[in-house]
Amino acid sequence: MTRPLRIAVDLLGAELPASELIEGAAELREIRPTCELLFICDSESIGKESSNGYQIVDCTNWVRDGESLRDILRERTRTSMHVGMHMLHDEKVDGFVSVGSTGALMALGRHILHTPLGIDRPAVIKEFDGKQLPFWMLDLGANIVRKPSTLLQFAFLGSAYASRVGGVERPRIALLNIGIEARKGPTLLREAAALLGAAKELNFVGFVEPSHIFEGSADVVVTDGYAGNIALKAVEGTVNFIRDVFFHELGSDDHGDAAQAIRKRARKRFRRLMRKLDSQRHNGGSFVGLNGVVVKSHNGTTAAGMTAAIAQAVREVEMGVPAKIQAFFEKG
Amino acid sequence: MTRPLRIAVDLLGAELPASELIEGAAELREIRPTCELLFICDSESIGKESSNGYQIVDCTNWVRDGESLRDILRERTRTSMHVGMHMLHDEKVDGFVSVGSTGALMALGRHILHTPLGIDRPAVIKEFDGKQLPFWMLDLGANIVRKPSTLLQFAFLGSAYASRVGGVERPRIALLNIGIEARKGPTLLREAAALLGAAKELNFVGFVEPSHIFEGSADVVVTDGYAGNIALKAVEGTVNFIRDVFFHELGSDDHGDAAQAIRKRARKRFRRLMRKLDSQRHNGGSFVGLNGVVVKSHNGTTAAGMTAAIAQAVREVEMGVPAKIQAFFEKG
Repeated sequence: MTRPLRIAVDLLGAELPASELIEGAAELREIRPTCELLFICDSESIGKESSNGYQIVDCTNWVRDGESLRDILRERTRTSMHVGMHMLHDEKVDGFVSVGSTGALMALGRHILHTPLGIDRPAVIKEFDGKQLPFWMLDLGANIVRKPSTLLQFAFLGSAYASRVGGVERPRIALLNIGIEARKGPTLLREAAALLGAAKELNFVGFVEPSHIFEGSADVVVTDGYAGNIALKAVEGTVNFIRDVFFHELGSDDHGDAAQAIRKRARKRFRRLMRKLDSQRHNGGSFVGLNGVVVKSHNGTTAAGMTAAIAQAVREVEMGVPAKIQAFFEKG
Repeated sequence: MTRPLRIAVDLLGAELPASELIEGAAELREIRPTCELLFICDSESIGKESSNGYQIVDCTNWVRDGESLRDILRERTRTSMHVGMHMLHDEKVDGFVSVGSTGALMALGRHILHTPLGIDRPAVIKEFDGKQLPFWMLDLGANIVRKPSTLLQFAFLGSAYASRVGGVERPRIALLNIGIEARKGPTLLREAAALLGAAKELNFVGFVEPSHIFEGSADVVVTDGYAGNIALKAVEGTVNFIRDVFFHELGSDDHGDAAQAIRKRARKRFRRLMRKLDSQRHNGGSFVGLNGVVVKSHNGTTAAGMTAAIAQAVREVEMGVPAKIQAFFEKG
């Protein structure tokens, strides 16, 4: 690259003040000192001292939840999300992170950045830690359309990601379902299974239940955005619940020195475990199937979560993810 | 009651041999010595000594996964599931536990036992431990039909269960969705929210995300059987994953006496936590909305899991759950 890596970050609509989220990014500067960040936000609402030396793009116009996609695509073309997407398209930045609506990001990304050959819809993908091996799951919430042909495209996108980015040879692809028997679940999934099974280029291994995804029977778990988001958030909720209850249980113990030492050790172990689960909890879902690096952040993210989402975008740019995915579809 | 409490248990189709599952029930005998169990299974496959003194109903005919509901209802009327349902209907037993298909149990229960006034479809409900309060979730897998009117019925069933059985006054009812904003998720859920909001008898509080169900914002979480089963199994998978990784982490430590003592203590704490999560992992989902106690067990259950499912049926019989639910719908 002839210039430093550059990421645009759309903060409009975030629950926390922009100034707090921008300050959080200082950590990233330590890891990637040469990375340039450019924040799209309402510059009036942040003090000049809060910009932390980063570039600010002033914008007050943002996509509100529940706006029609038609309006977003045709009428309201000066929102923070449009600004970021166009900067990415025009190669003024290398990656785009947004706290905006996943559905709007999907639609706008598709419209401005376009999708690889043969792909109609991008999906949100995430890498998870499994017991032995990592695995990928998609779509985690970009599309609530439920069509067998869409799931087939997600299977190809997941296979492309796991092989070209994750380095897995002939990734094993499974469909998320409520049972593994061939006749389980909605008709949609049985039709999708027939399509995936017939696609010679895919290493389709059948259905997988959410209770077994961590056990390593599949490298890629394919699902629609509704079920995928339900599963993702159930995992998040359980991790948080166990963490809170575990610390509460430890805290309710006696207060002798020995007991305190044990508590300290156990907490340390538990934190190590929670780090392993970080990828499950981390903020930032990557779009796969857009010709550009786009990462969706929770709009309720903390400063640390925002930094994690930006770091995710940086990694994807450095690895050249979109080009690798495009190459997969061009060469087959 | 003029005779001891009696539960019929359909074991046909279980992964473990019937003899092992029957032996597991010895634990239950200790807790409820007067409870009579009656196992429906293939008597040839178990030794006489394995019956453990329980009554065995010989049957070799069972509902196979993927059989059409039409066949089950009209043609194949001598399966173990039919035998159990008819015993329950004829009051020869007080509760019925089956390892058979949830969908078949739903259809057959509806056909033989019938549903309360105004209810078309029963659902599978389960009590979960939350951070502060328990909560109930339904449907966990009986129906893959996705209709707003069905979700409205589940809301009433959940409200009936939480108030009449759980003792919660004016239970707060939420719909499971991938966001809490009014326009999030599939159209189905927005239509259902309108129906639930308009029902004066329901204390509808809006959408809840799976990441927040443990936090106490709702007493009853209503969802369709597909999303509910996805969420339930994602919780199960995460609990198992954390348990396995935690013990692995603890095991990889040094082997001095002090370290071993700490491991032992931390494991004890973690087991205590896991007991709190038992209700999340426990085998046995109860049908609500059938005029009789029917509990569905995993077909891959262990002996301990089978005992848990039977104990669940015993509790429901003792509490008179179906009569309480019926009374709710008759009196409004």
